[in-house]
Amino acid sequence: MPVITLLTDFGTADSYVAEMKGVLLSHAPGITLVDLSHQVPAGGIRTAAYLLGRTWHRFPGGSVHLVVVDPGVGTARPALAVHTGGHFFVAPDNGVLDPVAARDDLQAFRLPVAPDVSATFHGRDVFAPAAALLATGASLQSVGTRMAGTLERLTPREHEPGTGEVVHIDRFGNLVTDLVPDPDNPDGLIWLEGHLIGPVKSTFADVRPGERLAYLGSGGTLEIAVRDGSAARVLGAAVGSAVRNIDRAAAGGGVVED
Amino acid sequence: MPVITLLTDFGTADSYVAEMKGVLLSHAPGITLVDLSHQVPAGGIRTAAYLLGRTWHRFPGGSVHLVVVDPGVGTARPALAVHTGGHFFVAPDNGVLDPVAARDDLQAFRLPVAPDVSATFHGRDVFAPAAALLATGASLQSVGTRMAGTLERLTPREHEPGTGEVVHIDRFGNLVTDLVPDPDNPDGLIWLEGHLIGPVKSTFADVRPGERLAYLGSGGTLEIAVRDGSAARVLGAAVGSAVRNIDRAAAGGGVVED
Amino acid sequence: MPVITLLTDFGTADSYVAEMKGVLLSHAPGITLVDLSHQVPAGGIRTAAYLLGRTWHRFPGGSVHLVVVDPGVGTARPALAVHTGGHFFVAPDNGVLDPVAARDDLQAFRLPVAPDVSATFHGRDVFAPAAALLATGASLQSVGTRMAGTLERLTPREHEPGTGEVVHIDRFGNLVTDLVPDPDNPDGLIWLEGHLIGPVKSTFADVRPGERLAYLGSGGTLEIAVRDGSAARVLGAAVGSAVRNIDRAAAGGGVVED
Repeated sequence: MPVITLLTDFGTADSYVAEMKGVLLSHAPGITLVDLSHQVPAGGIRTAAYLLGRTWHRFPGGSVHLVVVDPGVGTARPALAVHTGGHFFVAPDNGVLDPVAARDDLQAFRLPVAPDVSATFHGRDVFAPAAALLATGASLQSVGTRMAGTLERLTPREHEPGTGEVVHIDRFGNLVTDLVPDPDNPDGLIWLEGHLIGPVKSTFADVRPGERLAYLGSGGTLEIAVRDGSAARVLGAAVGSAVRNIDRAAAGGGVVED
Repeated sequence: MPVITLLTDFGTADSYVAEMKGVLLSHAPGITLVDLSHQVPAGGIRTAAYLLGRTWHRFPGGSVHLVVVDPGVGTARPALAVHTGGHFFVAPDNGVLDPVAARDDLQAFRLPVAPDVSATFHGRDVFAPAAALLATGASLQSVGTRMAGTLERLTPREHEPGTGEVVHIDRFGNLVTDLVPDPDNPDGLIWLEGHLIGPVKSTFADVRPGERLAYLGSGGTLEIAVRDGSAARVLGAAVGSAVRNIDRAAAGGGVVED
Repeated sequence: MPVITLLTDFGTADSYVAEMKGVLLSHAPGITLVDLSHQVPAGGIRTAAYLLGRTWHRFPGGSVHLVVVDPGVGTARPALAVHTGGHFFVAPDNGVLDPVAARDDLQAFRLPVAPDVSATFHGRDVFAPAAALLATGASLQSVGTRMAGTLERLTPREHEPGTGEVVHIDRFGNLVTDLVPDPDNPDGLIWLEGHLIGPVKSTFADVRPGERLAYLGSGGTLEIAVRDGSAARVLGAAVGSAVRNIDRAAAGGGVVED
């Protein structure tokens, strides 16, 4: 029972997603299609990589993840079919596959681009047919040619220990960070830019409505929220806002809530 | 051919819905998934209950309705699996199941919450696995323990006979009310706050473009619309705006259109 | 493995699409449902026809395309079931089927409207049951009565040779026109209102970020874009903006980029 997930920056008002699904269902009748998201900002490679990274492994083994955030469509950037961790990924080689790019078992194949396909919609004409073939049991070898070298990566976010940044803001205004809780320092205090958030809590109900909190998010990193509100709005935060986990003792007398 | 419907306040830009669907398809391969809505306002329990109430019975018997509008996630509020009317419902016990809560044949079971699940995403880690099990034939007894007592209800809207309020505004700006047409008083006149709407019509074409009308809506209650326009905008209405059905005779000389 | 596509102006916040899907799955268990779009502007018959026209033929033969953009619901406008090109179409007779209306092999049947159905939601009560029946193998004869005459058409856009207009603006702000590239005049220069766009390019990468270009779009007509930007915003264009393909020689000395 294979599944194909779709992750694009196409939105849902236009016909682009449906055109891809028509191609998928023509090549793979009865396949299960799941929208991962189509609201990635236009050309938002980093957002797409974030969403893919927290989601792909929730699907059954053998799933095919079709990612079409492709501002370089029509250029020489390779079109890829990849297998790793028991899943397939079909995407442009532009960093969207960053969350799996360093895996030991990764095999990457380059898809051919026929001369008669649309130069601006490889999602429909190149990636979708390959994804459908893989979902119906075709081998990587049958859809492309093995690619030498490594996949395109995102520029890593580099931080001092105990520091990080906001990497995503969700619909609720919750701030997802790349800070992983330190099991050796459970008493740290979380700061967002100049705002003291406080010690790490378990869940929203540990504070009163309207109050801020930090907690271990469902993606495995620290998040910052305002209960029944929007932390992004209340705290004026954006993707890239700095986050710190400061030892309570080290903080000394300097801990003053804004 | 079981179906699982999903009703959340997660929006469709983030990965949350797809993470749930990955879990559902991992536990119930090949299951049919249908989005009821993911645009419920954050924490909008009353909106979720309204949407669920008009939709669940349109699906085949045996369907599982997964409702994750859950501002109390991580608190002691029970996580429920319910069976009534030949359908299953999996949801927090916070009022979202109000449309079915009073049914005679209702059986409610409480889902266990394992200590290692995310404290902020029970939709993925608690509700979705239970929904998938029920969709594939598991018994309520096998997913939870029977719950004593009754389900959480919404505070009822109480009105004098012939009066009601706007309970939902749809994409078109149509105003859905909780007023049921009175078969004994087919000649009543509908008012919205200070605005005379007029007698109940059959459909939009019974008035000219730009004109207002009241009609029996597709959910079984009176609705107020402006043909080819937005009644919400034209009439300045909101959820909670008062609606009255006044006997033509009783209204006497007071019927003056604004 | 039949497929039903859904194209409406219902949006995705309300329950209307899900109510239709419940009816479809009740009549056709296990059917594959695909959203074409639900973001058509309210009553946007021309937009619906555009989206349908570029998408239906991407789906497998035997697919049923259910189009519910129906501002005349409840009036005498016929409710149609149509077969052409190996596909079925179920829709009101109001112009939404314009892209297939002139096909030689078209057969049109009129659906009965039972007296007890909602006067404002034929999508759920009239069109969806018929679409489900056709998807499961019922004949056109069994769901309606043969319609004499021709389908409602859209008012054609009439242009001088080499001129056209913007017919759709997509999520990226790309301008889709109805101008078909002239193979006999590959050296033409494309103009949008007073703006020189330039000769037809192959893909976005043929210009620098922020620059405008014209190219053969994925729907088979010329499109105008700004690389990594929004042509609609940068060029102040709207649906209806005039486009011209002017012979380079004929343009003479008048080619001055704005």
